[in-house]
Amino acid sequence: MPDSMGRLMKLYKIFVHNRPFVQEKIDQYCSGVFTLQKSTALGRRGKIATQHGVIETPFFFPVGTAGAMRGITFHDLMDLGAQVLLCNTYHLHLHPGEDAIAAAGGLHSFIGWNLPILTDSGGYQVFSLRGMRSISDAGVQFRSHMDGSTQFLGPKEATEIQWKLGADIIMCFDECPPSTASRKEIEAAVDRTLRWAKVCKVTHERLKMERNQTSSSSPLLFGIIQGGLFADLRKKCAEELIAIGFDGFALGGLAVGESEDEMLDVLRAITPLLPVDQPRYLMGVGVLRQLTACVALGIDMFDCVLPMRIARHGTLLLSDGSELRITNAQWKNSHEPIDPDSPSAFSHTHLRSYLHHLFRVNERMAETIACKQNLGVTLKMMRDLRTAMDALNR
Amino acid sequence: MPDSMGRLMKLYKIFVHNRPFVQEKIDQYCSGVFTLQKSTALGRRGKIATQHGVIETPFFFPVGTAGAMRGITFHDLMDLGAQVLLCNTYHLHLHPGEDAIAAAGGLHSFIGWNLPILTDSGGYQVFSLRGMRSISDAGVQFRSHMDGSTQFLGPKEATEIQWKLGADIIMCFDECPPSTASRKEIEAAVDRTLRWAKVCKVTHERLKMERNQTSSSSPLLFGIIQGGLFADLRKKCAEELIAIGFDGFALGGLAVGESEDEMLDVLRAITPLLPVDQPRYLMGVGVLRQLTACVALGIDMFDCVLPMRIARHGTLLLSDGSELRITNAQWKNSHEPIDPDSPSAFSHTHLRSYLHHLFRVNERMAETIACKQNLGVTLKMMRDLRTAMDALNR
Repeated sequence: MPDSMGRLMKLYKIFVHNRPFVQEKIDQYCSGVFTLQKSTALGRRGKIATQHGVIETPFFFPVGTAGAMRGITFHDLMDLGAQVLLCNTYHLHLHPGEDAIAAAGGLHSFIGWNLPILTDSGGYQVFSLRGMRSISDAGVQFRSHMDGSTQFLGPKEATEIQWKLGADIIMCFDECPPSTASRKEIEAAVDRTLRWAKVCKVTHERLKMERNQTSSSSPLLFGIIQGGLFADLRKKCAEELIAIGFDGFALGGLAVGESEDEMLDVLRAITPLLPVDQPRYLMGVGVLRQLTACVALGIDMFDCVLPMRIARHGTLLLSDGSELRITNAQWKNSHEPIDPDSPSAFSHTHLRSYLHHLFRVNERMAETIACKQNLGVTLKMMRDLRTAMDALNR
Repeated sequence: MPDSMGRLMKLYKIFVHNRPFVQEKIDQYCSGVFTLQKSTALGRRGKIATQHGVIETPFFFPVGTAGAMRGITFHDLMDLGAQVLLCNTYHLHLHPGEDAIAAAGGLHSFIGWNLPILTDSGGYQVFSLRGMRSISDAGVQFRSHMDGSTQFLGPKEATEIQWKLGADIIMCFDECPPSTASRKEIEAAVDRTLRWAKVCKVTHERLKMERNQTSSSSPLLFGIIQGGLFADLRKKCAEELIAIGFDGFALGGLAVGESEDEMLDVLRAITPLLPVDQPRYLMGVGVLRQLTACVALGIDMFDCVLPMRIARHGTLLLSDGSELRITNAQWKNSHEPIDPDSPSAFSHTHLRSYLHHLFRVNERMAETIACKQNLGVTLKMMRDLRTAMDALNR
């Protein structure tokens, strides 16, 4: 604890101006897990070392909920430059179960993806099952959306399951209050999130010892900062999580209905408190404009289903930054490539009229082409940000 | 006419023993369109020359109904060794319409497939719209399944539409009676199919002249032999279509509920009547065992949605010839590759347990992996047949 507090105090001094990206004198930090190569006006440029390779930061996670991407093969995903995949503990626990996956040699072997994987804890999913769950201090009892069976997930269980899955980065089990919750509810959620974070940490350390693993051979455990839009609750949560000690810190409970300014205000208040030598993960943000803004505020990692979801409904993100509703009648006779500069090769050869047609006749290939376009543009934007940072201050 | 009849008489002599595949003295026929390289005990080995390249026969058509394969990209389709694609005039006429496709430069440009394409005539689809269509000698009035609008398709229209689409092989508009139809109904359908075949031929020749096209620069037009299980009606239909003169001959109205023996009996009776120097296309057959038997009876071309349809419901065709119900509980913990010898690379790396899981949780990727497996095995079987024929009689 004294060590952590000492580090925290040092960081307070470093970030006294709340500007994590102008640390000109501090060029390189390395915590063993995370190397911060440089802080620039665009954001932080770094690397996360995992058991399945290095991830260049800042980056965006493609979301492969149950171990697959809707309509995009892993081969196509790597073509788009994906470095890492996010999978959901909730879904994989319900089917096929962590024991089946462990028997297959872990999640990487099971799904056939050899780059890093992050699993979330299932907290967000079980708290979304309103009317189908009851919360206690030990965790959440809920009904499976698959077969109605009674299930239980708490901090201990979520950590053990994620170890069995064998992900490279695992997340603490947190309480995710709705965006409409009162201060009192959010305060209670922060307290429970902190109690659970300790259980996750203890479980994680116990599993390391039981398996004779060092920090470099075990998964990275990230804490999740809750606290809604209340800066003092967020700050309390961040400080106590830093005191417990994690490999990285996530901001949860954002991008759930608040305004963009409110969200950015939370980042402005909290990122300066976070250890400069550890990665920072903003959960649930995937709007291109917001990604750039949040990177500039010191965030290193993002995940969101948005680029895929809007693709499925016919909204394309083009490589010039504009958007296009491909289902609109105006594209029926528009026989030019979807996006000649796209990171997705499909969009060089396939015509807007063709993609419009596939959406209109409900062909599944529509989703594949659109998802590959949107995910490709999102991943490329993060790559371009990294390249731009690399070119700065040289 | 005298020419056609003369050719027919010659063919009768050649096939006097009803064994088209033991023509040892006649090694190579060439009609300009089709080259029969050899007839073997396994079947006929040949080539069809089209405007978008040569197709090696015998072969199987992947069915890309509205201009796309369910879950399989064209890139993956070519990886599997597909030489050619089948698209449906009915679907493309309803959306986006042949004019939009012509404006895109034709079907190949519109969908982004540069190998040969066959379009069917739409006959099969409109005759399946029972209760939504009325038949006259000019064609079929029907209601669109998309928007309920009144539409009309006849032999003249179907031929003109297929020309606009720009397919390499186009089909006559035929009447497809149900498999339960009486002899009287089938006889009437044969007569109408023959009258319509003449209209298709006349329309085809008119379009050739209007566009100043030679036979080698225009699509190939195939006649369709109807007649149910009545050998005399099939024979009459075949003879009259041969007299009209087409680039190839299809057998329609089979694989619609009759027994396998009944179907093979029709082939035994009819293939010997068909010109040896023209391709023969059996519509709607895609069971592996039947493909081999029908090739041995002298068929060169097949199409069927069956390999894809059973894939979507979880039945896999393995490369050793066996079948596997991947949705069965026994595969939940079966952590071996789906089919290590598969023509589909997905099946080398992905596990049976993983594919079982994807089906159980309704992930779309299940369909992609299963369809690629089944189509791959079907296409490879045809390729293996061709290779085996090439090795014979050398």
